[in-house]
Amino acid sequence: MDDDSGPAFDVFSRACPSRGTLEHVTGRWGGLTLGALYEGPVRFSELRRRVDGVSEKMLSQTLHALERDGLVHREARHTSPPRVDYELTPLGRAVTERLLGLIELVEGRMPEVLAARERYDGVRGGR
Amino acid sequence: MDDDSGPAFDVFSRACPSRGTLEHVTGRWGGLTLGALYEGPVRFSELRRRVDGVSEKMLSQTLHALERDGLVHREARHTSPPRVDYELTPLGRAVTERLLGLIELVEGRMPEVLAARERYDGVRGGR
Repeated sequence: MDDDSGPAFDVFSRACPSRGTLEHVTGRWGGLTLGALYEGPVRFSELRRRVDGVSEKMLSQTLHALERDGLVHREARHTSPPRVDYELTPLGRAVTERLLGLIELVEGRMPEVLAARERYDGVRGGR
Repeated sequence: MDDDSGPAFDVFSRACPSRGTLEHVTGRWGGLTLGALYEGPVRFSELRRRVDGVSEKMLSQTLHALERDGLVHREARHTSPPRVDYELTPLGRAVTERLLGLIELVEGRMPEVLAARERYDGVRGGR
């Protein structure tokens, strides 16, 4: 890279580990899980309810990947009965803020997306 | 929803079409394709080179989904030989700006992610 101040990591390069992390953050369940954790610590069962449609196995795998990347912290609380909470780390919070910015934009522009789909399908159907 | 000004679309709900669009934007190849188009119009072959690791079939499918959602415009140019360029629509550009903000943050924080992975794997390995 010519510019010394440029990033050392590059998601466009297939060998770069940042691509894997981006996939954990933006994958089918990763993004929704991070978003659901943004309000504060949440138990597994509550998390599963919030991330509508996720299976127990997929949520578990998703949380492990996010925990390993240092985005989510797993906290076992010694209460009776014992409970396990998941929460964002400061790094996870920073990532999730950007992700929520993207999600909010997509949600807000959905009328345009749906109009585009109708145009696209109409043109294809008419051929 | 109590707040009338709240979003009409909600990616956390599995039936909401915004979830599909978010997946097109953040999916394995969707995000990289949008990012690669951010600089300006690009031909298919050049796009495939930039999105390191994508197959012809996957890039083609990715572009179709993004075009249908109104994020990418496909422009057939009547040159000799004829060529087809892909470019972001204004909506695609707005979405990609948010996405690149997320990508830049992830790339920039990768040293922390890699350190977290080492800690995580060390703890697991030591058990």
